[in-house]
Amino acid sequence: MKIGIVGGTGDIGEGMALRFSQKHEVILGSRDSGRAVTTSECTISELSKRGLPSRCEGCGNQEAVDRSDLVVLAVPFSHLAGTIGSLHGLEKKIVVSPVNPMEKKEFFMFVPPPEGSAALLARRLLPPEARLCTAFNTIAANKWKNLDDSLDMAIPVCSDDAEAKKVVMELAAGTGRIHPYDAGPLAASPLVESLTPLLLNIARYNRMRDVGIQFR
Amino acid sequence: MKIGIVGGTGDIGEGMALRFSQKHEVILGSRDSGRAVTTSECTISELSKRGLPSRCEGCGNQEAVDRSDLVVLAVPFSHLAGTIGSLHGLEKKIVVSPVNPMEKKEFFMFVPPPEGSAALLARRLLPPEARLCTAFNTIAANKWKNLDDSLDMAIPVCSDDAEAKKVVMELAAGTGRIHPYDAGPLAASPLVESLTPLLLNIARYNRMRDVGIQFR
Repeated sequence: MKIGIVGGTGDIGEGMALRFSQKHEVILGSRDSGRAVTTSECTISELSKRGLPSRCEGCGNQEAVDRSDLVVLAVPFSHLAGTIGSLHGLEKKIVVSPVNPMEKKEFFMFVPPPEGSAALLARRLLPPEARLCTAFNTIAANKWKNLDDSLDMAIPVCSDDAEAKKVVMELAAGTGRIHPYDAGPLAASPLVESLTPLLLNIARYNRMRDVGIQFR
Repeated sequence: MKIGIVGGTGDIGEGMALRFSQKHEVILGSRDSGRAVTTSECTISELSKRGLPSRCEGCGNQEAVDRSDLVVLAVPFSHLAGTIGSLHGLEKKIVVSPVNPMEKKEFFMFVPPPEGSAALLARRLLPPEARLCTAFNTIAANKWKNLDDSLDMAIPVCSDDAEAKKVVMELAAGTGRIHPYDAGPLAASPLVESLTPLLLNIARYNRMRDVGIQFR
């Protein structure tokens, strides 16, 4: 599968490239295509040192969309609307939002837009034919990046497109030991996006790092 | 410790009585004290059949408050405000809310009151001296009641009262294999209460039962 990572030079995007490019072709996008090329070269180099394969190429965000079947919007919530507005051609692509709208004051809180979640905001802004899924919300950047970490954790996946959800769950299940769970339609995504501020609070108040979740 | 269970004849209350009364003195309250007596007798009988000790007594909700050090509000969200309004003497007691405001339509959603969570509504209605904690939100009634279940799961605990939080976390840690985590102040309780509708959706869409959570 060809996976485009929009915002691929951010922490999450870099980590996803390290994981996905071992099995898939990653087209790593950035507003700054020069930085995307550098990140892509670093990804290949780091995996090569471990004797692992990597197919990864850096370019602009739009090119990452144009050349891929599945596009991950690996941007902070504050950039989500602007990023979607700057892109075209997302019709019929599988679009994955790992975005969590949250704020830190004394502790982390879920602060969704009026639509109810980042994914529901994206749904309003994307072309209706875009096959949107919420996934990977609870995996910390450090976990993605630390190749010694087996990613032994659960992720909930939401979508109104059953086939797209299946593709995303298979992508997840083939990445480390991620265990994907169907968490229902996109309208249920506020429950998924509010996990991350909870996990950050749990980490903080219990002196843990990069807390993940399991269902059982 | 003397634990009062308000709403002790409901599913959650009955299950808590089965667990807590093995180590603590449970005063099981109900609007209908006759039913509370019956539930209490059933609790003792079921534990006795397994050779387990039980200290449990049934009475009205107000008496359960009056005679206990820690009071669990084991009522559905729709009864929370009315129940608190019907009680007095909660000053200086540790008060535990396991309440989750949610609605089921096609799937389960978190539907909090204007205060932001059931616990924050309770905070507004309770006397300021009541030592309120959010805890046990994610443990399904079936799990509480099935004494063969080890309760090997995490629960997040919120409170603005550090000492009360410690007492509740110790109560949890001494109940089956529950692993309590500090989830911050009461203002962070919306993140805790929204876990339960997520877990119910996960159960439904993945054909699981009584899904619990782990942090790692």
